[in-house]
Amino acid sequence: MQPDTPLQRAFNRQPNAVAPIWLMRQAGRYLPEYREIRAQAASFLDFCYTPRLAVEATLQPIRRFGFDAAILFSDILVVPDALGQKVSFETGEGPRLEPIDTSARLSALRGEIDLGRLAPVFTAIEQVRTRLPENVALLGFCGAPWTVASYMVAGKGTPDLAPARLLAYRDPDLFEALIDRLVEASIAYLSQQIDAGADAVQIFDSWAGVLSQREFRRWCAEPLGRIIARVKARRPGVPVILFAKGVGSHLVELAQTSGADVIGLDTSVDLTFAADSVQRLLPVQGNLDPLALLAGGAALDTAVDDIIETLGGGPLIFNLGHGILPETPVAHVERLVDRVRRRG
Amino acid sequence: MQPDTPLQRAFNRQPNAVAPIWLMRQAGRYLPEYREIRAQAASFLDFCYTPRLAVEATLQPIRRFGFDAAILFSDILVVPDALGQKVSFETGEGPRLEPIDTSARLSALRGEIDLGRLAPVFTAIEQVRTRLPENVALLGFCGAPWTVASYMVAGKGTPDLAPARLLAYRDPDLFEALIDRLVEASIAYLSQQIDAGADAVQIFDSWAGVLSQREFRRWCAEPLGRIIARVKARRPGVPVILFAKGVGSHLVELAQTSGADVIGLDTSVDLTFAADSVQRLLPVQGNLDPLALLAGGAALDTAVDDIIETLGGGPLIFNLGHGILPETPVAHVERLVDRVRRRG
Repeated sequence: MQPDTPLQRAFNRQPNAVAPIWLMRQAGRYLPEYREIRAQAASFLDFCYTPRLAVEATLQPIRRFGFDAAILFSDILVVPDALGQKVSFETGEGPRLEPIDTSARLSALRGEIDLGRLAPVFTAIEQVRTRLPENVALLGFCGAPWTVASYMVAGKGTPDLAPARLLAYRDPDLFEALIDRLVEASIAYLSQQIDAGADAVQIFDSWAGVLSQREFRRWCAEPLGRIIARVKARRPGVPVILFAKGVGSHLVELAQTSGADVIGLDTSVDLTFAADSVQRLLPVQGNLDPLALLAGGAALDTAVDDIIETLGGGPLIFNLGHGILPETPVAHVERLVDRVRRRG
Repeated sequence: MQPDTPLQRAFNRQPNAVAPIWLMRQAGRYLPEYREIRAQAASFLDFCYTPRLAVEATLQPIRRFGFDAAILFSDILVVPDALGQKVSFETGEGPRLEPIDTSARLSALRGEIDLGRLAPVFTAIEQVRTRLPENVALLGFCGAPWTVASYMVAGKGTPDLAPARLLAYRDPDLFEALIDRLVEASIAYLSQQIDAGADAVQIFDSWAGVLSQREFRRWCAEPLGRIIARVKARRPGVPVILFAKGVGSHLVELAQTSGADVIGLDTSVDLTFAADSVQRLLPVQGNLDPLALLAGGAALDTAVDDIIETLGGGPLIFNLGHGILPETPVAHVERLVDRVRRRG
């Protein structure tokens, strides 16, 4: 990646005349060209593990919209898969895993992540980096230990994360062993993504917003801090973006202590609070409402302008506050990019 | 209500040697004596509208646990019901309403709330107040316009509130008319609850945590401010508790501008942030994790102690950070009350 792109300037805490932009889940179902190639793999995991398809899906939104960053097409649940847990994706139902809720089941997993199983991911990163324009960054990613563990324990997505939260209360030693295993796996996985060509990495803690302060510190903040410190020690100079959803009142602490280079903001984060309390410490990324993008028109324009007016004066990576919705019209994404680049 | 109870001292911003305590959804399914009387009404709404049953359900947790406040057994969706929308509760599935998603459907509703339809609610309040010990406060309540509107538009509970949020983006005039109708209905409903004997009222904005700053201000903060100002003008001296869930980064603004007397904290709110930024302005209420109460044991004790150590020095009403879960053992609630009263 070139050193003087808008994205690099944001990572270096420099303001930009025009904010760099990419969108969470920008490669995926809202794109007709993605829906066309999706059928070429039998399962979603097969798709992720087929470099030709993962590369193509990663590049599609760059060709169409000229985003400042590409994010590898993959899923956070490849990590449990590479730890030996059975993972599948049922159409319309989301992921299904064999729940890890006893120490016997945890012991049955691999002690260390099988990076060999993830070789197609690293191959895809290498190929994307070769084919991507020099001024476009390639982002690797993984899920945060808490978020990944919540799926591993429940065996599926759950509205309130009750299975993982209850296990953490009832058997904290077991839960800690699971989190620790995910910390080590995440460090190895992200390091290898960087070696394969990722210019920066994002950690998604999508379900951090349900925990009390003590649980948040123990299961989210502390493990995230360990991952970021170790990845940065092993692969210095590679920026880490931390997106923890729903943790408004913890964001200042994360900016101060996590070691991340950029703090992601979900849609609910108050823009004035973000400018005064978070962006004063670190560059921020976010936080357009995916439903404003789906709605389009004046609602979209107003929402874009609000973000640029409040956060555009400091280091900002323009993004959504959560993943793009599959129903989003492509024309609305074009309108968004155009508006950010004119206004930003 | 007596003037010098722990709860009154908290309302008056005075610290307490022992924090007053009540629990959101304290009357309800986790109590065997509630499950026993539930069958005496054909439907959940019938139960709410039968004073004998609503009174008994309201009093049950006071008899058993000696909480500092009783909260009327009812539901936030009696307001759409009294506006003429068809409302029902399907066992195990939650509420079902005929969706209001066009101006024709909004016009078909009543212009003003039918307080006559809610007469059984006011009768229940009168009877509870008569039978409640003098040192126990009776709380009335309603849902916030945004939260109630989200059910009225979608016709049911939805994980991401997408139907209401999209309508607000696509037809803000229609959505504003719905919110305005709910503001007027809430003012009339809360005022009448106070006349019937409610010592304080709580407004539940359970789904405020998904909105961007602009939408939050327009659909949550501003309407809430109008309701609170008008209720306090009409019925001076009656405290208003505002519980807006998931709005961590907006809490300071709500404390500064909503006019509420007490700010409710959900479980995710950082305790240090709450003490330094919110409780400095107003008394706070919360925020024990309902899953820590369900788990019990050392996890419960630690979670209780964390709250008392961080927030117990200032005005605090001890509560959960969300409603009690139906699976919660009664013995855990006893342990909680005992610990708060020994430690608090």
